[in-house]
Amino acid sequence: MSVMLTVKMVGLGLVAVSLSLELLGWLFTRLRSGRTLNEVLFFPSEVTCLEHIFTPASSRPCYCSLPHGVETSFTRLLRRILSTSSSLDLCVFAFSNMNLCRAVLMLHSRGIIIRVLTDRDYTVITGSQIGVLRKAGIRVRSHMDSVHMHHKFAVLDGRLLITGSLNWTLTAVQCNKENILITEEPDLVRPFTQEFHSLWVHNDPGRKHGSGDQIEY
Amino acid sequence: MSVMLTVKMVGLGLVAVSLSLELLGWLFTRLRSGRTLNEVLFFPSEVTCLEHIFTPASSRPCYCSLPHGVETSFTRLLRRILSTSSSLDLCVFAFSNMNLCRAVLMLHSRGIIIRVLTDRDYTVITGSQIGVLRKAGIRVRSHMDSVHMHHKFAVLDGRLLITGSLNWTLTAVQCNKENILITEEPDLVRPFTQEFHSLWVHNDPGRKHGSGDQIEY
Repeated sequence: MSVMLTVKMVGLGLVAVSLSLELLGWLFTRLRSGRTLNEVLFFPSEVTCLEHIFTPASSRPCYCSLPHGVETSFTRLLRRILSTSSSLDLCVFAFSNMNLCRAVLMLHSRGIIIRVLTDRDYTVITGSQIGVLRKAGIRVRSHMDSVHMHHKFAVLDGRLLITGSLNWTLTAVQCNKENILITEEPDLVRPFTQEFHSLWVHNDPGRKHGSGDQIEY
Repeated sequence: MSVMLTVKMVGLGLVAVSLSLELLGWLFTRLRSGRTLNEVLFFPSEVTCLEHIFTPASSRPCYCSLPHGVETSFTRLLRRILSTSSSLDLCVFAFSNMNLCRAVLMLHSRGIIIRVLTDRDYTVITGSQIGVLRKAGIRVRSHMDSVHMHHKFAVLDGRLLITGSLNWTLTAVQCNKENILITEEPDLVRPFTQEFHSLWVHNDPGRKHGSGDQIEY
């Protein structure tokens, strides 16, 4: 009986150990599959047709001469931007890329809340898309200090950060060696959200003119 | 006897459960305390005395007119750079900040393996510190394509990434609105390590001239 008891206890112990190992395995699988999104994109990006990104539901084929259906750093960046579901806070030194402008306008037409902060000096350069955004009714504020507002970041839906060396220009996307870092890591997103808020309030033209009115220009 | 056996088995089960809970608690504590370093710094940074950063062991007080012992974004950045223990891979568009140059020279004098990649056009601008680094014997390669090498990142000891909008210039540190992101997240560090390696090989002047010699200039 004593031997039988020992066998039973050892058997029970083995079951407990195997269950614990299974639990640990499940836990690690969960941690791996559910881990925070982190992605890095490098540029320049190959120049390709972007119609399948902007109009994925279209049944009409595109006959332009550019390569079609190619996944590049730029298509990945555009997909991320177009995945915005509620808000886009964009803080960018130079914004002249027409495809990125088209993406922002598409978000605006979907009712996404958009705020754009940009450098004053670069608002008026040839090719700047800031005027296009303003005409569409998007709220834009220019950094009014003498120093440059050199950031190039965006916060999507308050939880996804896109930042790096890349200005939103054609040269940056198609010619330069550039990087974009995309992350949902809260410790990285939170400071950028706070920085955007701080700059947005600081560059409120109403505040600058001693008025409480929110005037974007 | 059957009752005693049941009691023993239940007791053993309780021990197994409590041990599993303890193990899980330990695991979560480890995960929390050992979580990846993530830090964001914003600029411009207050201009302060940096002697306590460069010569922390000095017993001589500094009598310069700048504020002393102040922790700023720039002192935090310098501390991170000076904490390098084995290697520094730096890939930066413009490098004219003399304090950052001093930090790199200090690492070089400690025997840290340093590689610097920079944009060709900005190597020769007034105030560029690239010549100083070369004179000190640090390996520097210039990006030789017609496009700009617009990156501003560093990988320390192959595991810590410093990246952002900030060029290594005085204006960027003291005047502009800029950001620096510091992370040990492997999924973010790894692509930058690979990008550095790729650019380093691509800009090997020996390779460009059809020779196997490693010529840095």
